[in-house]
Amino acid sequence: MPELRRDPITGRWVIISTDVARRLRDFVKDHVVAHGDPHCPFCAGQEHRTPPEVLAYRDGGGPNQPGWRLRVVPNKYPALRVEGEFHRKGEGIYDKMSGIGAHEVIIETPDHVVSQADLPEARIEDIFWAYRDRILDLRKDRRLRFILLFKNHGTAGGSVVEHTHSQLIALPVVPKRVQEELDGCKRYYDFKERCICCDIAQQELASCDRVVLETDHFVAFCPYAPRFPFETWILPRRHRSHFEESDATEIRNLGWVQRAVLRKIEKVLEHPPYNWMVHSAPVQEPAMPHYHWHIEIIPRLTRVAGFEWGSGFYINPTPPEEAAKFLREAGLG
Amino acid sequence: MPELRRDPITGRWVIISTDVARRLRDFVKDHVVAHGDPHCPFCAGQEHRTPPEVLAYRDGGGPNQPGWRLRVVPNKYPALRVEGEFHRKGEGIYDKMSGIGAHEVIIETPDHVVSQADLPEARIEDIFWAYRDRILDLRKDRRLRFILLFKNHGTAGGSVVEHTHSQLIALPVVPKRVQEELDGCKRYYDFKERCICCDIAQQELASCDRVVLETDHFVAFCPYAPRFPFETWILPRRHRSHFEESDATEIRNLGWVQRAVLRKIEKVLEHPPYNWMVHSAPVQEPAMPHYHWHIEIIPRLTRVAGFEWGSGFYINPTPPEEAAKFLREAGLG
Repeated sequence: MPELRRDPITGRWVIISTDVARRLRDFVKDHVVAHGDPHCPFCAGQEHRTPPEVLAYRDGGGPNQPGWRLRVVPNKYPALRVEGEFHRKGEGIYDKMSGIGAHEVIIETPDHVVSQADLPEARIEDIFWAYRDRILDLRKDRRLRFILLFKNHGTAGGSVVEHTHSQLIALPVVPKRVQEELDGCKRYYDFKERCICCDIAQQELASCDRVVLETDHFVAFCPYAPRFPFETWILPRRHRSHFEESDATEIRNLGWVQRAVLRKIEKVLEHPPYNWMVHSAPVQEPAMPHYHWHIEIIPRLTRVAGFEWGSGFYINPTPPEEAAKFLREAGLG
Repeated sequence: MPELRRDPITGRWVIISTDVARRLRDFVKDHVVAHGDPHCPFCAGQEHRTPPEVLAYRDGGGPNQPGWRLRVVPNKYPALRVEGEFHRKGEGIYDKMSGIGAHEVIIETPDHVVSQADLPEARIEDIFWAYRDRILDLRKDRRLRFILLFKNHGTAGGSVVEHTHSQLIALPVVPKRVQEELDGCKRYYDFKERCICCDIAQQELASCDRVVLETDHFVAFCPYAPRFPFETWILPRRHRSHFEESDATEIRNLGWVQRAVLRKIEKVLEHPPYNWMVHSAPVQEPAMPHYHWHIEIIPRLTRVAGFEWGSGFYINPTPPEEAAKFLREAGLG
């Protein structure tokens, strides 16, 4: 019999279907293949084809010249821009505001590598340092209230350029989904006087059923009520609401953890398209005892269709205990 | 400059991007093509290949025999089942319940037609009568609190069988997204003592900027803050919280309206994959002055990726005023 499970943070229910016939048939067979691109705008030597860099880690060369290991540039087709006046306005019963914000691209390597998991550990550590540096800079603009860091991998994951990169979008409002997560964590904290993610980490580490891997600083696990097959979260053991407050030991370890988890996912699911997002507290807010930053990784194996759009309920054909077992037992490739 | 717009019901913000380069490039070129299927389980004569019907409209023949115009059968791979005990249970800090519910398929025609828009008006009217009949039957089971009617059209829309069909899922809980919509409508009602959808209909009909078509009973329009390009809503003019309370005149007219809107969408977007969902009040609740049932149609032209999953914010490259103009001016094909 199928089981309904409730996400303890947001209150979202998911249907964990345990029908084997359905489980296998419904998986979208979509694998990320590197095609190569002689005209790739993100490769070293093509710096003139992106807007000027806002950050680079270099072993040599000058700004917007080769010699960089990692480069952050404004998106050429930004969803939001920092220039302009911020105003809110009504239109009859409707509300709008100007699209103030930032949209940047983190080019993760000068070489034409397609998967972040194929980068050495130190390069992945660099990526997290770059996120931190960009947040510390952008949050000085008090209009920017929330910063989302995310990765689209593979065409089905929404990626247009195959050269490995991630994106940053800074918004003048706290998005509704983020606010829901904050509110859900706050409700639990008000009731228990404990952080829900600290409790989740404790319960997951005690049972180990859904744990993928653990280190001194992080635990990676498949959540109890995942929306998607093989959805995996990376949670720091130490309570902290803001990713950008992580210390050097944690960021170094995160490079290893992120690489290990992605390599396991690529091995088990044969290079699936995926997305991942850093969930972190709004940047203008002080440290929060109830919120705990983390990374959510969602392989794109099933299609989201009318039922999910209409209800916000998800049907997941793979129990997280089963997904975690596969990932736990897989090597690092 | 991009514009942020707020959905007046849910409070969800969307980014309406007005960058032409981005607008055209980001559209997924994915058209629904009829391949035909000599082994289609939904065609007349194949009745033995589905579970026994729970409803059929017939011009002749006996149960589970040819002669039907429309047939409703349980899903062969149901996400939920009516059999079994309903119970809720804890697992440490987590919550689960048994997957009680119903999952049915509405086979909209005995012929191998792929698009609902290619059916005659009277067949589409039949589909809405079937939805009504099934809701009136299922709501007798007091455990079932919410019923979602939806359509997945085309592979990218999540459809597995190409023969035109829609689906019904009955749930033992009111989904979070639905509750949010109910709460949003209630908040507006408490403030204004008017239904927000009645106000939306009035404002849309006064300006006409986003109206696709109107009849004596319905208005079809592109909403002010659409998540997706060419998202279109069909709203009854008469206030009613439950679709199943619609009268015969409305259901007859809805057959025409639904067909006309879908034909316009297929003409302008060249047979795109799409989903649509009937948004209606929870079936065990009495009539509500604040909630107004409607249909939401979402063509699947853009990919939902990390930004949308991480924030619940949507980036829509097509202003609804522009989409509505295209749809308004298109003929019925």
